Amino acid sequence: MGSASDWPTMSKAVEVLESFGVPYDAKVVSAHRMPDEMFAYADGAVAGGLKVIIAGAGGAAHLPGMLAAKTTVPVLGVPVASRHLSGQDSLLSIVQMPAGVPVATFAIGEAGATNAALFAVSLLAVTDPALSNALDAYRFARREQAANSILPTDESGKDPGAARVR
Amino acid sequence: MGSASDWPTMSKAVEVLESFGVPYDAKVVSAHRMPDEMFAYADGAVAGGLKVIIAGAGGAAHLPGMLAAKTTVPVLGVPVASRHLSGQDSLLSIVQMPAGVPVATFAIGEAGATNAALFAVSLLAVTDPALSNALDAYRFARREQAANSILPTDESGKDPGAARVR
Amino acid sequence: MGSASDWPTMSKAVEVLESFGVPYDAKVVSAHRMPDEMFAYADGAVAGGLKVIIAGAGGAAHLPGMLAAKTTVPVLGVPVASRHLSGQDSLLSIVQMPAGVPVATFAIGEAGATNAALFAVSLLAVTDPALSNALDAYRFARREQAANSILPTDESGKDPGAARVR
Amino acid sequence: MGSASDWPTMSKAVEVLESFGVPYDAKVVSAHRMPDEMFAYADGAVAGGLKVIIAGAGGAAHLPGMLAAKTTVPVLGVPVASRHLSGQDSLLSIVQMPAGVPVATFAIGEAGATNAALFAVSLLAVTDPALSNALDAYRFARREQAANSILPTDESGKDPGAARVR
Amino acid sequence: MGSASDWPTMSKAVEVLESFGVPYDAKVVSAHRMPDEMFAYADGAVAGGLKVIIAGAGGAAHLPGMLAAKTTVPVLGVPVASRHLSGQDSLLSIVQMPAGVPVATFAIGEAGATNAALFAVSLLAVTDPALSNALDAYRFARREQAANSILPTDESGKDPGAARVR
Amino acid sequence: MGSASDWPTMSKAVEVLESFGVPYDAKVVSAHRMPDEMFAYADGAVAGGLKVIIAGAGGAAHLPGMLAAKTTVPVLGVPVASRHLSGQDSLLSIVQMPAGVPVATFAIGEAGATNAALFAVSLLAVTDPALSNALDAYRFARREQAANSILPTDESGKDPGAARVR
Amino acid sequence: MGSASDWPTMSKAVEVLESFGVPYDAKVVSAHRMPDEMFAYADGAVAGGLKVIIAGAGGAAHLPGMLAAKTTVPVLGVPVASRHLSGQDSLLSIVQMPAGVPVATFAIGEAGATNAALFAVSLLAVTDPALSNALDAYRFARREQAANSILPTDESGKDPGAARVR
Amino acid sequence: MGSASDWPTMSKAVEVLESFGVPYDAKVVSAHRMPDEMFAYADGAVAGGLKVIIAGAGGAAHLPGMLAAKTTVPVLGVPVASRHLSGQDSLLSIVQMPAGVPVATFAIGEAGATNAALFAVSLLAVTDPALSNALDAYRFARREQAANSILPTDESGKDPGAARVR
Repeated sequence: MGSASDWPTMSKAVEVLESFGVPYDAKVVSAHRMPDEMFAYADGAVAGGLKVIIAGAGGAAHLPGMLAAKTTVPVLGVPVASRHLSGQDSLLSIVQMPAGVPVATFAIGEAGATNAALFAVSLLAVTDPALSNALDAYRFARREQAANSILPTDESGKDPGAARVR
Repeated sequence: MGSASDWPTMSKAVEVLESFGVPYDAKVVSAHRMPDEMFAYADGAVAGGLKVIIAGAGGAAHLPGMLAAKTTVPVLGVPVASRHLSGQDSLLSIVQMPAGVPVATFAIGEAGATNAALFAVSLLAVTDPALSNALDAYRFARREQAANSILPTDESGKDPGAARVR
Repeated sequence: MGSASDWPTMSKAVEVLESFGVPYDAKVVSAHRMPDEMFAYADGAVAGGLKVIIAGAGGAAHLPGMLAAKTTVPVLGVPVASRHLSGQDSLLSIVQMPAGVPVATFAIGEAGATNAALFAVSLLAVTDPALSNALDAYRFARREQAANSILPTDESGKDPGAARVR
Repeated sequence: MGSASDWPTMSKAVEVLESFGVPYDAKVVSAHRMPDEMFAYADGAVAGGLKVIIAGAGGAAHLPGMLAAKTTVPVLGVPVASRHLSGQDSLLSIVQMPAGVPVATFAIGEAGATNAALFAVSLLAVTDPALSNALDAYRFARREQAANSILPTDESGKDPGAARVR
Repeated sequence: MGSASDWPTMSKAVEVLESFGVPYDAKVVSAHRMPDEMFAYADGAVAGGLKVIIAGAGGAAHLPGMLAAKTTVPVLGVPVASRHLSGQDSLLSIVQMPAGVPVATFAIGEAGATNAALFAVSLLAVTDPALSNALDAYRFARREQAANSILPTDESGKDPGAARVR
Repeated sequence: MGSASDWPTMSKAVEVLESFGVPYDAKVVSAHRMPDEMFAYADGAVAGGLKVIIAGAGGAAHLPGMLAAKTTVPVLGVPVASRHLSGQDSLLSIVQMPAGVPVATFAIGEAGATNAALFAVSLLAVTDPALSNALDAYRFARREQAANSILPTDESGKDPGAARVR
Repeated sequence: MGSASDWPTMSKAVEVLESFGVPYDAKVVSAHRMPDEMFAYADGAVAGGLKVIIAGAGGAAHLPGMLAAKTTVPVLGVPVASRHLSGQDSLLSIVQMPAGVPVATFAIGEAGATNAALFAVSLLAVTDPALSNALDAYRFARREQAANSILPTDESGKDPGAARVR
Repeated sequence: MGSASDWPTMSKAVEVLESFGVPYDAKVVSAHRMPDEMFAYADGAVAGGLKVIIAGAGGAAHLPGMLAAKTTVPVLGVPVASRHLSGQDSLLSIVQMPAGVPVATFAIGEAGATNAALFAVSLLAVTDPALSNALDAYRFARREQAANSILPTDESGKDPGAARVR
């Protein structure tokens, strides 16, 4: 991530990775304050065995795109919500990459961080049956959770056939 | 609705339906977490006697449009306010349907939920004189309420003819 | 519609209604230039046997909302694309109605006009089996059309099972 | 104004009018809930001696434009900030009037209410020397207020000639 | 206006003024290129007998607001459509004036120019019965024009009572 | 893709895949017109050996998100430019997915289609050294192309050390 | 700055200037309330030895552009966040200047104020080796600060070569 | 500039520099396609005697910000208009830099390129009296040009005192 202030958002990605037992390295590599370290990080990505990079940044968010310009390791971008423009600037700065240098972009904020991590898991799951099973289980659990949502007034039956409007 | 977190918004629709004595079934059918159940729900809508479906969702809000793609029962879409973009994403995801699959869309948030329910009532009122009268009464009551608004400094007379600016 | 200049957009609604054999009356009733006629139109809607009103307007589009304020006949709003803001002003002026007076809103431009008419057909189909069948046939025809789309390079087989990426 | 909930905004207009001793009538005339009363209000504006109408509304804000469609008394529109879109919908619904029916529009929220009232005063001042003098005095007082702003660290001299950057 | 390039837009205002026989002076007074002349223009406005100023500008449109800061003659602002942002920048630069210095703002582009002129006419009509009558006639003519709009397929009767949807 | 009208955009993805010799299947699977076929397509994705799905759609673009809801095969979303909103609706409908169901989103239009394909290639390159080399060669060729850009006035030397501003 | 209410934002610029020991003069010169003083300030800028002007304003922010129209001293504009539009109006009012009168614009809010001051320092550093060294030291310190960011879960090693995802 | 396709915009900056006789080096240094060359360019900027860098880029425009992260030479950013979002993405990607790394940003498109060059000239003029005089002459010429604008209908006198509205 580009700043320690992105951590409340990006920690959601870490939570997902940890719940799936995927090893990761979480660190601050600022495109604007540490440009040389950022380039070194990207240059060492393949040799370091990185399979995917999740890069979160806000405002004029250049980190994901610059990493993608420097390495062919897939880069997943997370637009962190900005103070004044709610992440609209972050989103456009990350997703509107020119043809030739792709950054896979996810939603603004915590949902995007969660989904970038899930997407990373799905990439790894292609060659990891255990991870693939874990991903299926995650989806199943979430479906159950949604299906069993309790609404305050929802004392009626669940059978769609019973749903009706006069 | 797509999530239990939509309930504070969608409960406004339920309040309207209950105040008019219109039977309904409120439930969570997530397009993204329960896609098969959502399709089954839509497939069973006609047979289940549903006359109209009110679907509320936020962000990349796909529930109303996908229900509309699966059934000819009229679908009313309510854009739930999203955390970072205030429902602008929800609104565009619901209203900008391509030609061929209509979703009747209402305002972002609670006003939209209220109005979707009132619109559903107006559809049912076409063949239900009692409901039609109730709708007229509702409108009359609201007119009275507006006409009798008390403003802190409004001690002047109400007659428009008396209104004047030097 | 609010102006004869809306006709290229609103004629798409007429095309749908005619293809389904639904009688209609297409006319210009400007909220801003003919306010009294607009109110008279709305006041006469129930007595005139109108079952639904499709109102298209652009810019500060007040026609749909004002009709809805005057009659309980369901009003379907079509945001006509505006010259400078591409219909963003039209959309917000129509969809953001306050709680109490619903306008069912559809997409900006021709898609919205088509869908408003299809939605009107679906309302009428509730009590008209022939129309309901016609609507099903319409949907089936469009599915066939989509399924048989020819792409210039699409000489490969259609079987999804055959689709593959190395 | 269109709703009593607009009062916290519109009361700023009243404060200005009162400070200048301009008689006014503050009332709720909802375009959507009281359409007939709104039309009657507009129809009676000339006979009632209204010289200018300040109309504030939010969301799909139709009040200013509909009043302007019904009377040639000048209408000043104030976009009240809306809950989800911060008044962007209100602004576009009021300012984007079609050619032929003008609404003089001011800023979103309290600044707009204040300025609509000041603009009304300036219209009346054309034929009222005392009001014209009061307006000049108001401007002078505000200039003094700005010129004498105290900043916490501003202990340096005020002479622009002394301002310098190394 | 701020630039000769604004003339295609602002000439619509002139057309209105000429059609009503209102004397005017059309000139380029650029806030950014001729700041001193602009201030002199504003300083001389009262003495020169100006009753109202219509100021059109695009992009970072400062002309209307700066004139309003310098004179108490009412200023009407017209946001000229800009090349890249379609006048959204012009609109916000003109309408979002701080409390204390009002600019009456109209729609983006030609509609706004037309309406600013009509609004100016309505201000003058307050003390000019002939102008007031001309304004009424203008409105009547436009209502007739709208009421007699011919739509290609509109061979049906005009009576709203005859309008119907099956 | 959701419609044959998306082909001019999505063909850019095909061009990339073909240039890398990556087998693919290009087809129209409309979320709104062919919902059941879309679900069948997603259900058969794993068994059919799909390693990645590139889904392009415009307006209320539901195809990428609904495919992602139905399969764990990675889904890459391309927002196709829409007629009135230039793809802003498409972008938000695709990227703002809720936590739990990721869609990797790319730029609006042709750049996004090109980049989605390049990203797909990078995913496959992880386990395919030949593809990895081809990707490196692609990047090198593009760098050469950029470095050798000819500007009409650029007759000066290329050495950055020679660049200067007085 | 245009108003004392801009001080919480603009004080960030002062903090930077003070930390670099750059003399400055902080004052309120409102474009709208003190237009003549603003012009006098600009007219006296060169003679007063001003090397650069940092102008912050919000809403219809005319201060930076008008100063730039009056003096050739470089003007740096800071869009102060506005109450309803979060500074989007401020940004467009400042940055979208017409060709001929440049205003160097920075980010909305405190970041922009900080950066305008840093940019001013960089201008002065061109001819001031001590300031140039101080600027290098500032950057170095910020790099160190970023590189040493502590994340709650970041107990892993810092070597990029050690970073890995299964 | 980031791409040869930016030349039609950026050539406006060159025109200004040439008209003032300011030596420059125009070249393509793509942040995304030539990241190492871009960093080398920035690293050599001080030694190469660059006094200011004008960087134009479109879409996810990272060039100006990354150059600013690498050198303390002042960086002026020009948002090039993008195909689908008209440069709104370019503007936000350039101007919304985080505190610590300033980029002086100008208007979208050709006006911005012209103004960045004029701003560069104004920086150089601080220590170059001839350039300072040339800048004054440029401003004077533009004022004359504006003051002498001919409008088709402008046969009336130029004296503001003669301007009048009935």
